[in-house]
Amino acid sequence: MAKERRTAVTVIGLGLMGSALARAFVRAGHPTTVWNRSPGKAAALVSEGAGAAGSVAAAVAASPLVIACLSTYDATLAALGPAASGLRGRTLVTLNSGAPAGARRMARWAAGHGARFLDGAVKDVPTAVGGADTLLYYGGDREVFEEHEPVLRVLGGDTVHLGSEPDLAALYETAVGVPLLPALLGFFEGAALMRERGLEAAALVPYSVRWLEMIASVLPLFAREIDSGDYSDPVSTVATFHAGIPEAAHAAREAGVDTAWREAMDELLERAVAQGLGDRSIAALYELLRRPEPVS
Amino acid sequence: MAKERRTAVTVIGLGLMGSALARAFVRAGHPTTVWNRSPGKAAALVSEGAGAAGSVAAAVAASPLVIACLSTYDATLAALGPAASGLRGRTLVTLNSGAPAGARRMARWAAGHGARFLDGAVKDVPTAVGGADTLLYYGGDREVFEEHEPVLRVLGGDTVHLGSEPDLAALYETAVGVPLLPALLGFFEGAALMRERGLEAAALVPYSVRWLEMIASVLPLFAREIDSGDYSDPVSTVATFHAGIPEAAHAAREAGVDTAWREAMDELLERAVAQGLGDRSIAALYELLRRPEPVS
Repeated sequence: MAKERRTAVTVIGLGLMGSALARAFVRAGHPTTVWNRSPGKAAALVSEGAGAAGSVAAAVAASPLVIACLSTYDATLAALGPAASGLRGRTLVTLNSGAPAGARRMARWAAGHGARFLDGAVKDVPTAVGGADTLLYYGGDREVFEEHEPVLRVLGGDTVHLGSEPDLAALYETAVGVPLLPALLGFFEGAALMRERGLEAAALVPYSVRWLEMIASVLPLFAREIDSGDYSDPVSTVATFHAGIPEAAHAAREAGVDTAWREAMDELLERAVAQGLGDRSIAALYELLRRPEPVS
Repeated sequence: MAKERRTAVTVIGLGLMGSALARAFVRAGHPTTVWNRSPGKAAALVSEGAGAAGSVAAAVAASPLVIACLSTYDATLAALGPAASGLRGRTLVTLNSGAPAGARRMARWAAGHGARFLDGAVKDVPTAVGGADTLLYYGGDREVFEEHEPVLRVLGGDTVHLGSEPDLAALYETAVGVPLLPALLGFFEGAALMRERGLEAAALVPYSVRWLEMIASVLPLFAREIDSGDYSDPVSTVATFHAGIPEAAHAAREAGVDTAWREAMDELLERAVAQGLGDRSIAALYELLRRPEPVS
């Protein structure tokens, strides 16, 4: 009974994340239709109670709310293409990584086919989908968000509307995501230093976790400096980072680690010092990222 | 009475961190002698109960446990030089950033002057010194560490002995520290993307903090992959990161952000894909950092 009254949802794209989304809807009692380009991926979900559509058009026709979870906007457009005419009057929600321009393109495409549109992102791993603290954020028309919010909340208790522009989630996604690869490469280089000494990378983990917590704890301060443009009362100066370059380089050489991936960062520090920013907060590097020309 | 029975401690170097260390000893009732090259910095501590030595030699002579907190090993050697002969029979503890080679040099210097030696690092901000959860780790002779552990624990409840080699704290410090600047620059670039859209960097912070937590949560897995050399069961592949390059580049161009600081990382991804590592875990990049030559 209760199940019948829940909004029907279609999930298109059954990678690890798409499958996790569909599973969360099934478990919450929503009639859930799934579709994937390679049909094998639907089998597990069907055994859990989802319905597998025979075509993407049938998948779209099955539900007023269609969630597409493919790797990119291009992949999303390619997958939805054959079902475009069926989107009229439905709500399309895209959940994938991509840049703001892709989200805007997606929004125009959806509008052109008469669909309402939200673009969002799952800010967690697939196994966290459905958790009370799991964060997902969305950009797009507030009314559309509010209408679907109870259903979207099935995917994570921390469901946020960033604003009405349809590319806001992609903007936040892109902005939040920049540190990922740099931070991971930093960890991998640290692991190389450890292993060169016969220690395990695993021995580094508890300390690296604490270090990431420390980094997180200083972000509000750095954000304040960036937003105010005032770098004159530093907790950590450009000069301090600059002074660490030779010793870090020596340690890497000693361990036979290739540091080419981060040498341009040292050059950025050199440039900042040359521009007289040595005694400013390290957040002053923000100004160099924005403006290639010297700042005063 | 109780105060008189506590170990006397000398703190040399009264920057933000050195001052925090001295303050913690004073508050814990240890007779605390301080010294700094520029004497003005001792005034606040003296008003809180520390004694200011008139020379570095007098500072060393005042306590069996001498803690030097200067920016580098070179600075430490320069500061302690005039007091070297007074170190015989005392324990010198250095707490600064630096590479393992510097710590080994420091250890040889201390041994040459008849001092026992530990090298450590404070893994937190100065304001956290003295906290129950504050982490400090040390390398050096276990007996020396165990003798002084109760006193060192005044600086932080999470006080760890990493092993008997005197450069271990510097090794961990260097290895743990590599992600700092890369992660911060990632945040700064993210801030630039936000501000170009008229949003504040502060709006990014809660999501960036969550994202760093997510990164921390995957480190054990990546460490396991690195320690085993098995990248064949990925949670996130090299190809996924590689596929994100064009959109991230587009977003940066759109916002007028200079991405030179991280372009070598994209090249590393290109190289990994060219070597057939696309379907491996992103942690396989570790192998490229260690070995510039192609891996199979």
